[in-house]
Amino acid sequence: MNDSNSIFHGGDPAQAEARFGVPKDGWVDLSTGINPVAYAPGPIPADVLHRLPLPRELDALLAAARVAYDVPDHAAIVASPGTQALIGLVPTLFDAADVSILGPTYGEHAPAWAAAGHRVVGVPSMCAQAVSPAICAVLVHPNNPDGRVQAVDGLLGYAAELYDRGGALVVDEAFADVMPEVSVTPHAGRDGLIVLRSFGKFYGLAGMRLGFAVCTPEIANRIAAKLGPWAVSGPAIWAGTQALNDLDWATASRARLKSDAVRLDGLLQGAGLNLVGGTDLFRLVESSNAMSAKTVFEGLARAGILTRPFPDHPTWLRFGLPGCEADWVRLSAALAHLT
Amino acid sequence: MNDSNSIFHGGDPAQAEARFGVPKDGWVDLSTGINPVAYAPGPIPADVLHRLPLPRELDALLAAARVAYDVPDHAAIVASPGTQALIGLVPTLFDAADVSILGPTYGEHAPAWAAAGHRVVGVPSMCAQAVSPAICAVLVHPNNPDGRVQAVDGLLGYAAELYDRGGALVVDEAFADVMPEVSVTPHAGRDGLIVLRSFGKFYGLAGMRLGFAVCTPEIANRIAAKLGPWAVSGPAIWAGTQALNDLDWATASRARLKSDAVRLDGLLQGAGLNLVGGTDLFRLVESSNAMSAKTVFEGLARAGILTRPFPDHPTWLRFGLPGCEADWVRLSAALAHLT
Repeated sequence: MNDSNSIFHGGDPAQAEARFGVPKDGWVDLSTGINPVAYAPGPIPADVLHRLPLPRELDALLAAARVAYDVPDHAAIVASPGTQALIGLVPTLFDAADVSILGPTYGEHAPAWAAAGHRVVGVPSMCAQAVSPAICAVLVHPNNPDGRVQAVDGLLGYAAELYDRGGALVVDEAFADVMPEVSVTPHAGRDGLIVLRSFGKFYGLAGMRLGFAVCTPEIANRIAAKLGPWAVSGPAIWAGTQALNDLDWATASRARLKSDAVRLDGLLQGAGLNLVGGTDLFRLVESSNAMSAKTVFEGLARAGILTRPFPDHPTWLRFGLPGCEADWVRLSAALAHLT
Repeated sequence: MNDSNSIFHGGDPAQAEARFGVPKDGWVDLSTGINPVAYAPGPIPADVLHRLPLPRELDALLAAARVAYDVPDHAAIVASPGTQALIGLVPTLFDAADVSILGPTYGEHAPAWAAAGHRVVGVPSMCAQAVSPAICAVLVHPNNPDGRVQAVDGLLGYAAELYDRGGALVVDEAFADVMPEVSVTPHAGRDGLIVLRSFGKFYGLAGMRLGFAVCTPEIANRIAAKLGPWAVSGPAIWAGTQALNDLDWATASRARLKSDAVRLDGLLQGAGLNLVGGTDLFRLVESSNAMSAKTVFEGLARAGILTRPFPDHPTWLRFGLPGCEADWVRLSAALAHLT
């Protein structure tokens, strides 16, 4: 039970161990887009574990998120136990109809809409999405895995159009923390626009399970009612409030991730891999003619370095960022060994 | 947003502070049924916070819960971020119809069924529930706040009958940890029976947000699909696995809570309050003629002791158990001061 579905995700070396064995120095897990240098919230106070979260604690979390994500005053914000809970819930807010999803993208959106009775149409470009007759539309922004971004004006106009059709544009900004300049969150609060934010990726605290929806008060009330009281754990509220209030940490982490992404590009290109796209939390490469992505994936896995292949896109491979110098050295050596 | 609804719950002294001020020695919060002597899981490992929970970690949690709750092999078990998530989700598994709820009881069941489009009928007794034409039925077992329990055979027969009507019996066993001998969980896995278990109350870790549904594999798969992957946080999986595996702690805690409940009854009856019922995690009393429950609530609140009044049952007052000797002394003194 609960061990989810058949959608392939990174982050579970146990699957790789069944095939490649346990590496002698442990895994360097580059199969996710989670910041490897996490925010360190310090030990969780006992009373946060013992009692139910208090309304004032949740209010403090939402206030911190408003500042960190630049949420306008007229927009509402709701916290959830991970963005995944919102990905499952948002489709239930709308009558079953056509929904277009800009792809290829994160694999959980399509089944969530299908489970709520919608007809899912995958579209390859924002232009194709804009001319589709769908009532609702979903895009991940910047997109996972290729990092595609869209012009904010276009997204806002499209959201208004979908609202007129009785639907909405859902913008999953799970990786927008590293690109605040392209985010639509500062424009949230208007009809037809629902923005999802993920706490765990940029702050490196994915195990905490914390996400947010930023939208109109009317949609936020419906989401909050469906989530019910005490949806977010005490530890997540406590760590999230601290982390989101620490704007200096965010600024420094953005700068570090940016330079690490450049360093990673250098290594990957040096190994003959072609950069397709990405964000500062992950890079997507394509194998050159000489070497298949499968060969690279397997060669790295044998060296204890786990990357993210894409069963539907066999030439692609996604790399998260190494978190410490030893991991950089191992990646560099393993890439050199491939060629 | 998210600050829930208008249903009154205990556990938030801030509401009382607005009226009674902040007590000089702090609050003794007896307004909940949460075990005040919590399981102590020790510091949470960093990687549990950093990465997404792994399938094998969730499997270990479910295995521990199977033993702690005496779940039969043919039954399935699903974990959720708190029982509240299941209270909201289970009504969406059935077509909108009539649902009967044995009351008075925990306030969140009725609005959850109503929100999913069902027509909620409150019934005062198991006999009234059994003759109702409802398709689904809900009872809390033992009941909160009065501690009523039902014969297991009757519940199993009723579950089978509701299944034949296309529905199910939902048994919320949030407080059954202190009465394993009356639990229906060991009989779960048959059609028409959905048992909910709450981790946070007995283990004193309500802030963690962890609950379980024990039911048929078919219903469990539907619940798991609606919850989606990674529904439960890493810290909750980690602490829950340890706590649920610690059967000695559970046995010792049951014994301690039983003797503390007897001690509490003595204090309450000595103060002229009449015992209505309860479990070993809380006691429900009725005021005698000489003194209204409102007078007792207010007198205790002025002494910094928070209890749980019931707006719909003004003669009732619920007391959780004090957690340390100093709190027992304060309660005893405050009760003596009343009379």
